[in-house]
Amino acid sequence: MIARMTADELPIRPEIRGVGAYGAPQLDVAVRLNTNENPFPPSAAVIESISEMLAGELGGLQRYPDRDAVALRTDLAAYLSSATGVSIDCDGVWAANGSNEILQQILQAFGGPGRIAMGFEPSYSMHSIIARGTGSDFVAIPRDTDFAIDPVTACEAISAVQPAVVFVCSPNNPTGTAVDLETIARIYEEVTTNEIGVLVVDEAYAEFSNTPSAVSLLAGRPRLIVSRTMSKAFAFAGARVGYFAADPAVVEAILRVRLPYHLSAITQAAARGALAHAPDLLSAVTELKVQRDRIVEGCRHLGLRVADSDANFVLFGGLGDQTVIWQALLDRGVLVRDVGLAGWLRVTAGTPAETTAFLEALTEVIGTLSVAVATEPVGQESR
Amino acid sequence: MIARMTADELPIRPEIRGVGAYGAPQLDVAVRLNTNENPFPPSAAVIESISEMLAGELGGLQRYPDRDAVALRTDLAAYLSSATGVSIDCDGVWAANGSNEILQQILQAFGGPGRIAMGFEPSYSMHSIIARGTGSDFVAIPRDTDFAIDPVTACEAISAVQPAVVFVCSPNNPTGTAVDLETIARIYEEVTTNEIGVLVVDEAYAEFSNTPSAVSLLAGRPRLIVSRTMSKAFAFAGARVGYFAADPAVVEAILRVRLPYHLSAITQAAARGALAHAPDLLSAVTELKVQRDRIVEGCRHLGLRVADSDANFVLFGGLGDQTVIWQALLDRGVLVRDVGLAGWLRVTAGTPAETTAFLEALTEVIGTLSVAVATEPVGQESR
Repeated sequence: MIARMTADELPIRPEIRGVGAYGAPQLDVAVRLNTNENPFPPSAAVIESISEMLAGELGGLQRYPDRDAVALRTDLAAYLSSATGVSIDCDGVWAANGSNEILQQILQAFGGPGRIAMGFEPSYSMHSIIARGTGSDFVAIPRDTDFAIDPVTACEAISAVQPAVVFVCSPNNPTGTAVDLETIARIYEEVTTNEIGVLVVDEAYAEFSNTPSAVSLLAGRPRLIVSRTMSKAFAFAGARVGYFAADPAVVEAILRVRLPYHLSAITQAAARGALAHAPDLLSAVTELKVQRDRIVEGCRHLGLRVADSDANFVLFGGLGDQTVIWQALLDRGVLVRDVGLAGWLRVTAGTPAETTAFLEALTEVIGTLSVAVATEPVGQESR
Repeated sequence: MIARMTADELPIRPEIRGVGAYGAPQLDVAVRLNTNENPFPPSAAVIESISEMLAGELGGLQRYPDRDAVALRTDLAAYLSSATGVSIDCDGVWAANGSNEILQQILQAFGGPGRIAMGFEPSYSMHSIIARGTGSDFVAIPRDTDFAIDPVTACEAISAVQPAVVFVCSPNNPTGTAVDLETIARIYEEVTTNEIGVLVVDEAYAEFSNTPSAVSLLAGRPRLIVSRTMSKAFAFAGARVGYFAADPAVVEAILRVRLPYHLSAITQAAARGALAHAPDLLSAVTELKVQRDRIVEGCRHLGLRVADSDANFVLFGGLGDQTVIWQALLDRGVLVRDVGLAGWLRVTAGTPAETTAFLEALTEVIGTLSVAVATEPVGQESR
């Protein structure tokens, strides 16, 4: 039998030699709380709305889609205006196949070879992966002990590193930590003292947060970009729709790097169908915040450490070897996420039943394994 | 009134300063023959098949799609096996949002900063644009006077430039020229004498060609990638589905650079719905070849020069200032493509009625403007 060739035997770029593909295990488990999905399926009304929009497109699929996705961007602008109270127009909104493609396009326009991107970690790991994938260098600045971003430390780091693209994730994945607008405004000032500096506030989980959106900071800040997704609050992860709001000049810049016809006619139509039912879809957000708070309470009751969360997930710690707890939960049919933070795991808020299943499994696991519950301040292991 | 900021006032990368966004004008004209779309809409049976596949997905859109698109890749492999007679498995096929994303992923894995991509021009302009967008340098080698690739010239250029990624477009856009397998095999040998060399054969228009597919060359050539699209023959441009066939090690390499969950659940489902009706969709290919040959005949009858075409479009020349002819055709409700080749225009084969409208408009334009018909050998202006 001839051994099969592997990618490492091909002339791939040195940066990707010996690395694995990014992505959480996709396991067929009863309770999947590992990828921050919204557990509530779209309602019958939403499905019908999407179906109708799709039906209008199928007969014309032989034609390329609207390259600029104007109708979808108009709907996204209307939603964002209504959600934030800030008036946003179509020409200040851009959409792509998930916020990953949004971030990649931003880095292609403003980062890339010879430029540095920066993030405050632990944070969304795709920031560094996409940065490096576009040839940008990436510098990670550690967060505070409570996973907050200290504005003084942040500004010192920005001043020292002179990054072209700075990512602030708020609420932050995987910690759930929101960043207040004052800190963001201060970071923007520091980022833009460098003439090539751009600030990206990643608000993938904004709808779950009580902290105001950075969209309210856009006016007069042409180098601020606020990225969003329909994956989470809109329960639309399967449809892959990310977007950003920014000065129209930023949209114009992205038009120069985007692949033409990047967003399919069916994606544009499906997203518009879902946006037409925003209140319906977003009602689940309230319920998920309840489940999130149940998780916070439950973990604290078990003596675990919990990061404050403004998102639809919770980072809980004091677990000792978190890989043992991860496996023990999986053995009980509950899949959570090991984000590579020693002593911590991340769990997504599920349906009431899923959340109960998680809390029961965790209680059992903690009892069985006699996990040593640490008493240090929250976040210390992340250093 | 405050003047609006432009992208050039932002700290965009120098490479995209002052450039426009790529893309043909999307004009609302009666006869649109400018983007090589298939003019025949999907049949009722195909629409029903796609609708059924989509209906099965909408209720689960809150979940991320299959990150590896295994079912779709299996269907694409089956189609490719049946279309080419070469046995292809799922693990040797990859799919993305249009062949543009396919090409971008290939360049991210095998090209990029410090590496050179090469193409034989005139050819598909996205090859150079995407190469530069990923930080690769791009070297264009001119084609022969009849738009063919001379293997000796090609191999000399490859030997001199030492490219990491070489693109051969067959049938070639915008000329329609197919490349025989002997030439491709010879180029592969030369490309792979460089230890980082990879050959990409772009077969976006393969179904319209009588020349065999390079898929038959894959066995024993792990650095050969054959890219395809469902946009053209499958009349699926609006759905954005490109794919490639290659050694499974190449797929493994692409997994390291692809954005996770790049392909939506609805795209995967819609594509599978269309693939289930491949014979139905492909029946239009025969009709389009008839219309293409009508265009070739009609242009020759008008004394124009015509490049031999194995695709669903025709490059016709001897037009003097082609921008004048382009506008004159547009004034008559027919939109064709000015690909920037002095003296030439490209027209897509349309429905019988659209093709007739084009030929009538062209006849009128040529008569009215008394265009000087050149008598030099085909392709001379492309140098």
